[in-house]
Amino acid sequence: MPLQLYYAPGACSFVPHAALELAGASFEPVLVKLHKGEHHSPAFRAINPRGQVPVLVDDGQAITQIVAIGLHLDARFPQAQLLPPQGLARTRALELLAWMNNTVHPTFTHVFMPAKFTDDAAAQASVKAHALTRYRALLEELEAMVTTRSGPWLGGASPGLLDAYALTLLRWGGFAGIDPTTLPHTWALAQSFAALPPVARVVERERLQLNVYQPAAA
Amino acid sequence: MPLQLYYAPGACSFVPHAALELAGASFEPVLVKLHKGEHHSPAFRAINPRGQVPVLVDDGQAITQIVAIGLHLDARFPQAQLLPPQGLARTRALELLAWMNNTVHPTFTHVFMPAKFTDDAAAQASVKAHALTRYRALLEELEAMVTTRSGPWLGGASPGLLDAYALTLLRWGGFAGIDPTTLPHTWALAQSFAALPPVARVVERERLQLNVYQPAAA
Repeated sequence: MPLQLYYAPGACSFVPHAALELAGASFEPVLVKLHKGEHHSPAFRAINPRGQVPVLVDDGQAITQIVAIGLHLDARFPQAQLLPPQGLARTRALELLAWMNNTVHPTFTHVFMPAKFTDDAAAQASVKAHALTRYRALLEELEAMVTTRSGPWLGGASPGLLDAYALTLLRWGGFAGIDPTTLPHTWALAQSFAALPPVARVVERERLQLNVYQPAAA
Repeated sequence: MPLQLYYAPGACSFVPHAALELAGASFEPVLVKLHKGEHHSPAFRAINPRGQVPVLVDDGQAITQIVAIGLHLDARFPQAQLLPPQGLARTRALELLAWMNNTVHPTFTHVFMPAKFTDDAAAQASVKAHALTRYRALLEELEAMVTTRSGPWLGGASPGLLDAYALTLLRWGGFAGIDPTTLPHTWALAQSFAALPPVARVVERERLQLNVYQPAAA
């Protein structure tokens, strides 16, 4: 039975989507149209009761969570080196992956969907403004890590999960009014990653524009 | 060089703290007094610039992030089976670990430290109230998973990272006004886990009371 990936264009499902292509996996990409509310449909809720993408279906088993899907694919396709295979390099990569997932990613959620955190409109505006400042600081922290990385990619010699997540988080910054070119090392990494033929297929399939930043009107 | 764990009593550092004892590791526990602001001290910031516990120091390398520390210890002490060793059981455990770490844990942060999300006092109160309702729902979701687990522990046959995290999240619920005995399967699991001799050493060292719930005065 082939793998299936339920994804939404530009969502964090880009991370396993890119990983599957990098690994040369045979899989069926299944588009979930968030703007049409398809993630709330009974059919999708039957696959993931939390109504979130990504979902990887492997041998009939629906697997959620970027970190779990990423480690599952890493174990299934070890030759792809989606993460460094062992030792301190692996631990450092997992540390960065966890931070992206539990700190940077949810900070963007506060910018993009403040209604998840309070029903009060004024409080939502306050939460959003606070998160925006914090998101910029976190992308700068990421920029410092990208700048001082030891290899061509965030995990070292091979492109993988970390580069895909960095691209996603930087791209989201554009929606939050953060010009990606002001984070030049991360921006260069994202462009190099997107240009890899397996990743370019994902960018094409998701119809992604890498730089979505729009300067405020004068 | 022995391992060191920087921990604060009752914080999420309980997870690696319990894991180290379960693994029979030789390590030095280093108490960080959060109420005295020791996590903001220059000495601690030199170890972890983010000023957070836990930090595991292994061979002079400071490792942060529960998920990364947990996987590091799992790789270093495979005989302890802190997580299921492979296959779908491992993926399911990682899925639950990631969810605890990126969803349940930060929801408690909104209850406990709403000032991290907005500077406005009224907005903080709104965020806190919203998170409290959500935290109760998440603990109920965890309760359902505990109830239907396939083995004696959340990861199956061996006690490990998931049980330690479940205990921590349930215990925090007490501070949020959630009576742990109203989540009886999780409460029973936490008590069984705390009674294991290696874990009992951690409970003793951290001077933890498992049930911190205080009924509102009549």
